[in-house]
Amino acid sequence: MIKGLTDAERAAGARLMARLDAFAAFTDEPGRLTRLFLSDAHKRAAQAYIDWCAEAGLAARIDAAGNVVARYEGLTPGAPTLMLGSHIDTVRDAGRYDGNFGALAALAVVEELAARGERLDHAVEIVAFGDEEGVRWRTTLTGSRALAGDYPEDALDQKDKQGVYMRDALLAFGGDPEKVLALCAHPIAAFVELHIEQGPVLEAEGLPIGVVTAINGATRLEVGVDGLAGHAGATPMALRRDAFAAAAEMALAIEARARAEPDLVATIGRMELWPGATNVIPGHAQFSIDVRAPLDVRRDAAVADIEARIDAVARGRRVTATVARTHEAGAFTCDPGIVAGLTQAVGSLGVPVRLLPSGAGHDTMAIGRLCPAGMLFVRCKGGISHNPLESITVEDCATGLAALSRFVTEFRAG
Amino acid sequence: MIKGLTDAERAAGARLMARLDAFAAFTDEPGRLTRLFLSDAHKRAAQAYIDWCAEAGLAARIDAAGNVVARYEGLTPGAPTLMLGSHIDTVRDAGRYDGNFGALAALAVVEELAARGERLDHAVEIVAFGDEEGVRWRTTLTGSRALAGDYPEDALDQKDKQGVYMRDALLAFGGDPEKVLALCAHPIAAFVELHIEQGPVLEAEGLPIGVVTAINGATRLEVGVDGLAGHAGATPMALRRDAFAAAAEMALAIEARARAEPDLVATIGRMELWPGATNVIPGHAQFSIDVRAPLDVRRDAAVADIEARIDAVARGRRVTATVARTHEAGAFTCDPGIVAGLTQAVGSLGVPVRLLPSGAGHDTMAIGRLCPAGMLFVRCKGGISHNPLESITVEDCATGLAALSRFVTEFRAG
Repeated sequence: MIKGLTDAERAAGARLMARLDAFAAFTDEPGRLTRLFLSDAHKRAAQAYIDWCAEAGLAARIDAAGNVVARYEGLTPGAPTLMLGSHIDTVRDAGRYDGNFGALAALAVVEELAARGERLDHAVEIVAFGDEEGVRWRTTLTGSRALAGDYPEDALDQKDKQGVYMRDALLAFGGDPEKVLALCAHPIAAFVELHIEQGPVLEAEGLPIGVVTAINGATRLEVGVDGLAGHAGATPMALRRDAFAAAAEMALAIEARARAEPDLVATIGRMELWPGATNVIPGHAQFSIDVRAPLDVRRDAAVADIEARIDAVARGRRVTATVARTHEAGAFTCDPGIVAGLTQAVGSLGVPVRLLPSGAGHDTMAIGRLCPAGMLFVRCKGGISHNPLESITVEDCATGLAALSRFVTEFRAG
Repeated sequence: MIKGLTDAERAAGARLMARLDAFAAFTDEPGRLTRLFLSDAHKRAAQAYIDWCAEAGLAARIDAAGNVVARYEGLTPGAPTLMLGSHIDTVRDAGRYDGNFGALAALAVVEELAARGERLDHAVEIVAFGDEEGVRWRTTLTGSRALAGDYPEDALDQKDKQGVYMRDALLAFGGDPEKVLALCAHPIAAFVELHIEQGPVLEAEGLPIGVVTAINGATRLEVGVDGLAGHAGATPMALRRDAFAAAAEMALAIEARARAEPDLVATIGRMELWPGATNVIPGHAQFSIDVRAPLDVRRDAAVADIEARIDAVARGRRVTATVARTHEAGAFTCDPGIVAGLTQAVGSLGVPVRLLPSGAGHDTMAIGRLCPAGMLFVRCKGGISHNPLESITVEDCATGLAALSRFVTEFRAG
């Protein structure tokens, strides 16, 4: 029970939950929530968002990159704008909170201001981004990247599985492929995104909400181990060069390295063995490693250590290991001023302030090229996301929305 | 250089190598050696074996179960018979020595006796078994099991991938499905099989030949580990229930247990992860364990320890593990009298006697139900078998054949 919540804030949270339930009806697949970028369901969801904006007195529109944007003017013309938002595209068979929660919370914030007839000194822009999940085309974050002037050049010429070019789909959606490269013409003072955690930390600590300090950078490694295949019965243990036994030892060394440092994670998600028969010692093992950390220097150091440990295990077991880096993305550090402001807003609710990094990527890291940016995380059940079982409580919803609202009203452009 | 070999024994070894090369021409697949049980190539190979027997003055025939058998009479009518042999069916894309080596060596032994006009006190029967590899139907060792009065009841009614019943193929081959259940009518005093090692022990120790003490029993386990899938970025190490990390720890514990005891082996040949994505912590791991040992009590103890270690790792990592036994075969102990006789024969060649267990199964363990039985192993390059790279040297071939010949001439029924 969050004692710092006002009755009005509780009521606003309940309304937002009801709207999230209604919004989940916009799907491309009956019976489950699938709303891919620029799909028919995405178009209907965008139109509903525009209609709700209109009901609150805001003129909303679809921008060139397929985002829905609306502006709630402030008292001082020319004062820097505060931007709020998240995405409304989803993965296949999604939960109803990932993205949608932040996009509809942004709308709720300005709805409350409009309902009270309250104008802030600064304008507030709200955005419902498209293309955060990157499911339909081999692109991601094109909506937020367009706003930041960082649109990926090859995105428009990509085809989806049905052979539809993103350029054509964007045009049909109401966007303008000719204008995505220089989208944002006016200054933005700050951007804040409210999002479900998609991890188990807040739940484990009994906290409804947390302030994000950084979006972790990630390195992906692909490791191949070559040993010697042999008869599982006829080859004594001492004469083996078992590729999987080596991989297992590497896995435990990698896990130990990650455990030794807070906020560092390393995951082996894939493991394949050749020939993969019950009665044959594996001659080859192939596996992936996903390493993430809030600071690039720490991630780089961990990756170097992991490579050294793989090498040491390989030498000790007379196998050879090759390691390739298949993906590398730098960490994004949230703006300290925004972290401070969000900390104050959370604290004002009487909630202990938990600062934590985000393991997953978000629109915030793209918008961070444009202006200072930060995030709030709300606890989700079991840390489950990208799944119909995604779940948040009404009270946590109200707490997240209240923290965002309080941040918005207290915000002063630096 | 084996100094104990006579010139005649060296010459016999060279002739056997040449015949093994010629015999490899009987294949169902041009360009590689594939000779499945009761196939056309098997029939042609059997006929060549019969023809070679005839040239040596032996009347050979195909028995009811599809074996080629021939008898070289001894001086004493009614004296117990010594049986020699191995199999002439192969796996797909086989090497030329597995099985064929022992079958043609048995023929070579009686050819040498016949060429010298030498009769022993006891008769010698030679057998070229079919169906050792068990590739075409879901049966194995039906040839040797028929001789031992242990024919598997459901074998004849099985269909191969082309829908051919084993019963019909056996009839077409020249066998008699009605007589397989009670095949061997006369007493056999002993059986000896010469075979390539199919493992790396003799090569590692620089020895051409070894005497087999036992054919290892085997237990196969199927292990399922259930943890909790989660986002690879958003789930801190301390909150994970990573099914693969648990499986890796189990794998190293299993390996350590097997290493702690000579002649015990344990192999994880298959490992599958779910969902198996780079950026998802595995929620489920499924793997096989193959455990073998020369003594059943030792294998049973090892399997119990392995199950206990799996359980301990699962508890320590808050995952659940289920272990199912999918296969269980008892060990076969070679007859001590035959081991002693083979030891004497090997020693007479001036070769250090290495006693070792067999990790793979052989016809010997089926014939062992009929009479005392034993085996000789000959070194093969790299321990490689079931592969065209299977290789033995001419000198090792001569050494194996000479040891078998000397055993046969010195043999006295107990």
